[in-house]
Amino acid sequence: MRLAQALFAPRAVALIGASGDARKNTARPQRFLCKHGYTGRVVPVNATRDEVLGERAYRRLADAPVEIDHAFIMVEDVEPALEDCAAKGVTVATVYSNGFADAGTDGAERQGRLVERAKALGVRLLGPNSMGVVNLPGRFALTVNAVLEADALPAGSTSLVSQSGTMLGTLLSRGAARGLGYAKLVSVGNEADLGVAELVELLVDDADTKVIALFLETVRDAERLARAARKAHAAGKPIVVYKLGRSALGVELARTHTGALAGMDVALDAYFRDCGIVRVDMLETLVEIPPLLAGREPPGLTRPARVAVVTTTGGGAASVVDRLGLHGIALASMDDLTMTATKDSYRATLEQLLRSPDCDAVLAAVGSSAQFHPELAVEPIVQAKRTPKPLAAFLTPHAERSLALLAERGIPAFRTPEACADAFAAFFAWRSPREKTGTDPIIPPIEKIGSVPVFALLGALGIPVVEQAIAQAPDFAHSVPYPVALKRLDVEHKTEVGGVVLNIQNGTDLAAHAARMRQSKLLVQRMEHGLAEAIVGYRDDPVVGPLVLVGAGGTLAELYQDFAVQLAPVSEAEALALLEGVKGLAMVRGYRNLPRGDVAALARAVSALSRLALVSEVREAEINPLIVKAQGVVAVDARLVLK
Amino acid sequence: MRLAQALFAPRAVALIGASGDARKNTARPQRFLCKHGYTGRVVPVNATRDEVLGERAYRRLADAPVEIDHAFIMVEDVEPALEDCAAKGVTVATVYSNGFADAGTDGAERQGRLVERAKALGVRLLGPNSMGVVNLPGRFALTVNAVLEADALPAGSTSLVSQSGTMLGTLLSRGAARGLGYAKLVSVGNEADLGVAELVELLVDDADTKVIALFLETVRDAERLARAARKAHAAGKPIVVYKLGRSALGVELARTHTGALAGMDVALDAYFRDCGIVRVDMLETLVEIPPLLAGREPPGLTRPARVAVVTTTGGGAASVVDRLGLHGIALASMDDLTMTATKDSYRATLEQLLRSPDCDAVLAAVGSSAQFHPELAVEPIVQAKRTPKPLAAFLTPHAERSLALLAERGIPAFRTPEACADAFAAFFAWRSPREKTGTDPIIPPIEKIGSVPVFALLGALGIPVVEQAIAQAPDFAHSVPYPVALKRLDVEHKTEVGGVVLNIQNGTDLAAHAARMRQSKLLVQRMEHGLAEAIVGYRDDPVVGPLVLVGAGGTLAELYQDFAVQLAPVSEAEALALLEGVKGLAMVRGYRNLPRGDVAALARAVSALSRLALVSEVREAEINPLIVKAQGVVAVDARLVLK
Repeated sequence: MRLAQALFAPRAVALIGASGDARKNTARPQRFLCKHGYTGRVVPVNATRDEVLGERAYRRLADAPVEIDHAFIMVEDVEPALEDCAAKGVTVATVYSNGFADAGTDGAERQGRLVERAKALGVRLLGPNSMGVVNLPGRFALTVNAVLEADALPAGSTSLVSQSGTMLGTLLSRGAARGLGYAKLVSVGNEADLGVAELVELLVDDADTKVIALFLETVRDAERLARAARKAHAAGKPIVVYKLGRSALGVELARTHTGALAGMDVALDAYFRDCGIVRVDMLETLVEIPPLLAGREPPGLTRPARVAVVTTTGGGAASVVDRLGLHGIALASMDDLTMTATKDSYRATLEQLLRSPDCDAVLAAVGSSAQFHPELAVEPIVQAKRTPKPLAAFLTPHAERSLALLAERGIPAFRTPEACADAFAAFFAWRSPREKTGTDPIIPPIEKIGSVPVFALLGALGIPVVEQAIAQAPDFAHSVPYPVALKRLDVEHKTEVGGVVLNIQNGTDLAAHAARMRQSKLLVQRMEHGLAEAIVGYRDDPVVGPLVLVGAGGTLAELYQDFAVQLAPVSEAEALALLEGVKGLAMVRGYRNLPRGDVAALARAVSALSRLALVSEVREAEINPLIVKAQGVVAVDARLVLK
Repeated sequence: MRLAQALFAPRAVALIGASGDARKNTARPQRFLCKHGYTGRVVPVNATRDEVLGERAYRRLADAPVEIDHAFIMVEDVEPALEDCAAKGVTVATVYSNGFADAGTDGAERQGRLVERAKALGVRLLGPNSMGVVNLPGRFALTVNAVLEADALPAGSTSLVSQSGTMLGTLLSRGAARGLGYAKLVSVGNEADLGVAELVELLVDDADTKVIALFLETVRDAERLARAARKAHAAGKPIVVYKLGRSALGVELARTHTGALAGMDVALDAYFRDCGIVRVDMLETLVEIPPLLAGREPPGLTRPARVAVVTTTGGGAASVVDRLGLHGIALASMDDLTMTATKDSYRATLEQLLRSPDCDAVLAAVGSSAQFHPELAVEPIVQAKRTPKPLAAFLTPHAERSLALLAERGIPAFRTPEACADAFAAFFAWRSPREKTGTDPIIPPIEKIGSVPVFALLGALGIPVVEQAIAQAPDFAHSVPYPVALKRLDVEHKTEVGGVVLNIQNGTDLAAHAARMRQSKLLVQRMEHGLAEAIVGYRDDPVVGPLVLVGAGGTLAELYQDFAVQLAPVSEAEALALLEGVKGLAMVRGYRNLPRGDVAALARAVSALSRLALVSEVREAEINPLIVKAQGVVAVDARLVLK
């Protein structure tokens, strides 16, 4: 049968290792299936019992008298259970059991063998270490997550894929408290077989799903997720992600917690942006943002966004506006209605702003009435005639009933000023997935690492390289015009070992310096002067793949973390846009009365280096510095790392 | 009678302009006093009624048959009401009526007259534009804020002073929803008479108050608040502030909303730090942090703080840890207990960490059990034997009952990972109020503005100044050794008008350049070269008073906002610590193999310039650049603005 149906709406489900003790975690799936009204057949499998929690149980899966679409494996001996599933013709097995990639090298090997066997047997796997699957509109709750103890969880049109099983419960619980429901929820565990990307593909085809939310600790298959994201975009289904690893500490924790490679956070930012995936910064935003995204397209503004605020609570509105300002969002207007405003005048103000060309979104900041008179407080908001422009609400008091009333009507409503501003910032930063262009570069074969081959490669990419030559003992003759720089060829951090001498004026001085360096071969380069220095880098990131980086030169990129990153390759126009993100390059973009540098040539070089993405042998390449002149750029030092 | 008693616990209160229509805002104070059990006498004053909401009313305050300690004025004609209050011997009048400094210049003038009259009459004023005063333990709710519609608001030991009346309701409501109560709450309105600082003084003396929370849009009397904060520190009562104006947009809004001067946000950061006031970044942290501060001293760590995390929910804990990392806090250890951990082993783990020297705080991250079994979930936390080290909790699901149980036991508990990390960051950044030192500088009289007097002033402060002389037409003779720089004296942005020529090698060249500049007098300076440039500035900020600033030189301070600010004056040791906050100066602090600059001399110059705080005539002074050499520093350009 079809994977999606077996996963989310099986006709019958087997619970392998179901406990007869209702207090145990392994009894939960059966209790929850029953509690939430699953209409299919539940088949407990228990090695020692014929009855589990009032249901006929079987000693072995083979004994089950019906076809099983989905099995939930809770026993330690996962491998024989998998064989039983295959024998029974099970389509998908969700493995709750852990002790696989979550448990060191031995576990990872065990997981490898399990997946291989599952593939051979034709059984799809969710997990191991998965907390299960929930389909709220379909009344199917196959999970050990305690959140399903709650009654009447609201169904909604957001589906969640989570790499953390417990966060699935957290998000469901927090949504439910304010009337924000979910459609499907999946805990992917170790993603041994079914991964985030494939689940996104399934959800794109899911009629109940309008928005796809992801809670991620890492990205395990960036290419497939990128394709799935483009498919979701084409289907008009926004994807929003909360990803751990904003800080170095978080990156390290994700690595130890999931055993996965952890990428640079800025690389992930670039990756999500490239795929058209909205990234939020705060956990609660992941719960609150879906109604802001549902049914909408990326706004694609080319100027700062403007939000109009309507409020009866100046202080409350100011707390959001202050935060919007931190995200670079402007205030289009502030209608500070007094407490005596009627609901009609309130609604009229909202409607006028929703029609106005002067703002990109409208925010209603509601005060204490949201707590004590929820129906009245939200009435002007829910009744305002909608336009495609977003209308959202921030409620200053504790006001769950108002939040739920707004959720019911699909109006994004926020509990904190920070999550509200985070959501608007993420919404306005949202872009359509990038169309990748780029023809094959003509690149010579790369044979060895060192200063000279990297320059040959740069030359082949069309990046201007400093005039240079290899000078050899004993006389170190060369044809490069003076003044020149002399550099050692055998070390990487040349400056730190006295391996660079700049501004040598003549052959006599050169010979003297060369003798002191005690090398038989040295690199001689023409001295170049420019208006600024830049770093241009390329890296095949282990998580998100080829990246291009451009930063301010010298020590600025490092001291100030002043660089911009984009998935490679990039066009010249894209490179030019990327440069705008580097503050240190402001000095050559036209700053006060300083002379302008050739940013077009810089962009050409960035685009050229980014085309290394089309050459599989290169792991890293860096031009540092690339000298930016009034006319043109020139690479004076570079390094290359092959795979 | 005593102000505090009249304000928070009057024997009788008059409601001037009390409405007989229970639905009106002006009927609220009477309804709320009654609803929350006020035991004193309530005297409605209404020009047309003898009875208001069942209470005997009076046409004029003079008719009231009892002594009135506190009057609440809701009528438009505030001035005659004030006269009546004085005649009746009222101690304090809270003015809800607006149309004063909140309403433009005319309103501000009206406010000025009102305050002057109140002073003459001996009546203290709260407001105008105040939403009132609440004393929860004292069962006194004199306010129009709708939050008092709630039943059984919990009393606590945090008192709040708010410049936004509506936010008073917001904070009270949000606290109540999780069992975090308040003692006193005051809406200060326009602070025409009673301001934030004086209220803090009153709260320091208030036996019910352990922590003082401030919601601020501006600071109107920085000096008095600084004194009050030192008094609070001496009394062991922490002060925590949430202040709007993090963004330029927020600053502008605060200015238009309150009519107050708005200071630079970094200046306010410096001010609060100087006073020992804890500043939080997120609104909800203001509600959640008090139990973390209550009864504690500033931790005063001189290394990054380390937090130990105990959890049964890896993903939930990771979301906090990631955020802690962004604040520079380290993870001491992570005890990822499985769901099968007993409450005894959980408690034992907490207790062991609370006693361990390896961490500075302990955080319990609790999963779904907090929602479904609150008593069990919080049991190991509330039962753990406390030490002075903070123990806090983050609850991943929606779990208000658990939050309340923790609040009851005084354990800080957080609803979001972001507010949790914000609170820890604010706690660890908390410092005792700074002791101000600094003797009078010997400074000559400052007579006029220009390049040369400012150098004389710098010299008098002991800051090394470049060797220089004024050269006059026709021959521009001078005694400064070549090479020199030539600068115009008559313009401020010299470089932008071609008013600077550097590196002149001899008198002939100098004469030629001087002729081209067409000036009769020019400044000749010896050329100075150093390892780095710094900006050192002094400013008498309109909000927080004298400040000293040090930043990276050139365009770095502006491009990267790379500067550090402290209240002036500062000692050399304080200046040295301040320099650590400037990233661009890393290059001279010992970066890779770059030569070190004389940071001690730089610190001496910063300390010296900061002593301008003791000279009242200076508004601003800036040395830009101050050249930092391997030995010593030298000021080569500077400007001065007098008051």
